[in-house]
Amino acid sequence: MRAFITGGAGFIGSSLADRLLASGHRVTAFDNFSTGRRLFVEQNLANEQYRLIEGDVLDAEKLAAAMRGHDVVFHLAANADVRGGLDHPRRDLEQNTIATFNVLESMRAAGIAKMAFSSTGSIYGEPQVFPTPETCPFPVQTSLYGASKLAGEGLIAAYCAGFGFTACVFRFVSILGERYTHGHVIDFYRQLKADGQRLRILGNGLQRKSYLYVQDCLDAVLHGLDKASPGFNVFNLGTQEFVTVNESVGVITRALGVEPRLEYSGGERGWVGDSPFILLDTAKIRALGWSPRLTIRESVERTVAYLVRTPAVLEG
Amino acid sequence: MRAFITGGAGFIGSSLADRLLASGHRVTAFDNFSTGRRLFVEQNLANEQYRLIEGDVLDAEKLAAAMRGHDVVFHLAANADVRGGLDHPRRDLEQNTIATFNVLESMRAAGIAKMAFSSTGSIYGEPQVFPTPETCPFPVQTSLYGASKLAGEGLIAAYCAGFGFTACVFRFVSILGERYTHGHVIDFYRQLKADGQRLRILGNGLQRKSYLYVQDCLDAVLHGLDKASPGFNVFNLGTQEFVTVNESVGVITRALGVEPRLEYSGGERGWVGDSPFILLDTAKIRALGWSPRLTIRESVERTVAYLVRTPAVLEG
Repeated sequence: MRAFITGGAGFIGSSLADRLLASGHRVTAFDNFSTGRRLFVEQNLANEQYRLIEGDVLDAEKLAAAMRGHDVVFHLAANADVRGGLDHPRRDLEQNTIATFNVLESMRAAGIAKMAFSSTGSIYGEPQVFPTPETCPFPVQTSLYGASKLAGEGLIAAYCAGFGFTACVFRFVSILGERYTHGHVIDFYRQLKADGQRLRILGNGLQRKSYLYVQDCLDAVLHGLDKASPGFNVFNLGTQEFVTVNESVGVITRALGVEPRLEYSGGERGWVGDSPFILLDTAKIRALGWSPRLTIRESVERTVAYLVRTPAVLEG
Repeated sequence: MRAFITGGAGFIGSSLADRLLASGHRVTAFDNFSTGRRLFVEQNLANEQYRLIEGDVLDAEKLAAAMRGHDVVFHLAANADVRGGLDHPRRDLEQNTIATFNVLESMRAAGIAKMAFSSTGSIYGEPQVFPTPETCPFPVQTSLYGASKLAGEGLIAAYCAGFGFTACVFRFVSILGERYTHGHVIDFYRQLKADGQRLRILGNGLQRKSYLYVQDCLDAVLHGLDKASPGFNVFNLGTQEFVTVNESVGVITRALGVEPRLEYSGGERGWVGDSPFILLDTAKIRALGWSPRLTIRESVERTVAYLVRTPAVLEG
């Protein structure tokens, strides 16, 4: 398989590249290094089966040229900064919606008809049904991030219907593990590294969140794509549990051996558009034979251990 | 009320302008005349309460400047050519998704926080539930048109959540009536005017479709906006009936006094992405006190009568 990975130098994209190379596939990683890291791709630069292209998915011409000659596209490039949406409304539109359009058009030009897409549980907004299945009632968007990913999903579905593509859309919960660079664990870790006596927490700490370990996520992506039906497929990814922000804080502080004073910004939501409760129903992907190996607690612990032993990640 | 109407020279937009002016409101119509018609706005050009601005919703700067000083935005400008989506994939993205983003950003810059948006029943794809309610299971997109309108809805919902907007999204069935310029009635009328002996029909004629009379649609839009809750509101619009394409053909040919030979392209769908069955559940808007006055048959008859007496419409 000749795989093309947008966001191929990022947390999940670079981890996927390693997995595919280890299985004997050829990989092209396409990344603009806005959040991707050289640190995550160095180990592959001498590998003949690997190619790294520095480019932006908004540069449609460069993207289309780079994509030629591949069999499958993993479209992982995205703006993943959910919280900053309202400060930069154009960013989600460009990096998540228009970028996905560019990827689809490049695939069409290159004659590639198979793809995987990293969507998000955020597209469920604040659902009424928990755990939330893929077929839950038509949701109302609560964040620009969710709206931009929903738009990406819609485009992909329409390309499946109109141009005969086969796609797997994966609605991720937050992903944790090695190479993690963005989210509450690193935020808390940064704070506690600077001052172990005090931790500022967005919201009231009672938000219920779901997480998934990156290698479990990649198992699901590869398994789902392998088992996909022709046309449009959508799968929730996550564990069958959730933790509160406070429980997550407990795991992190115990792992670091600190006992900070906890200071809450207050409110049920950490920020406007934050979901107070995320728990996805993953029966659909589990029915295909996948299940996660790590619990949320183990994922958080692995992430903290990774951050502790990889100080370079904090410098990005 | 100072109303700003994008697509204000179009079928529905110009009809809305007339209604608002008649009720004593001030109206600015913004239109690029790609499908809008001078014929539809001439009657208002001398009215001091009316302003016509020729501009494109993709010209963000001009749009933002034009929008200042209004209280409410009716965002009706759109690419409504559902069938041509696959020939011009960029068109739906630009004219329906990016344009909606431009409208929202212009509103934010102008301090306008109230809007109505013309969405579509096409966002339900091929639903499993009939009549289809607003809260039906999370749909899969089957057309670029539907996907682009879904993206517009998502952006609007996120702006309601993030910036305190109040919006009414109306999911229209196909609209008929005076100033109608696009769709199966005009397609059939054009054919029959050229040759009353023969009518080519896309699909097998058994597609079940819903229609709504334009003045009933405008009643619903104005009523819905008036009764809207703060934040995001979504309403299906339509009648509680459907007709097959063949029944529609019968109404049109009887109205014109012709008996053509019917030639079918075949298949359950008229084109890739066509919905073989559209019937929206309108209980939500009806519960607010709205109901349509005309049946589908009456709407088709009025549309044919309008086309017969307004040959200029065929020249566009």
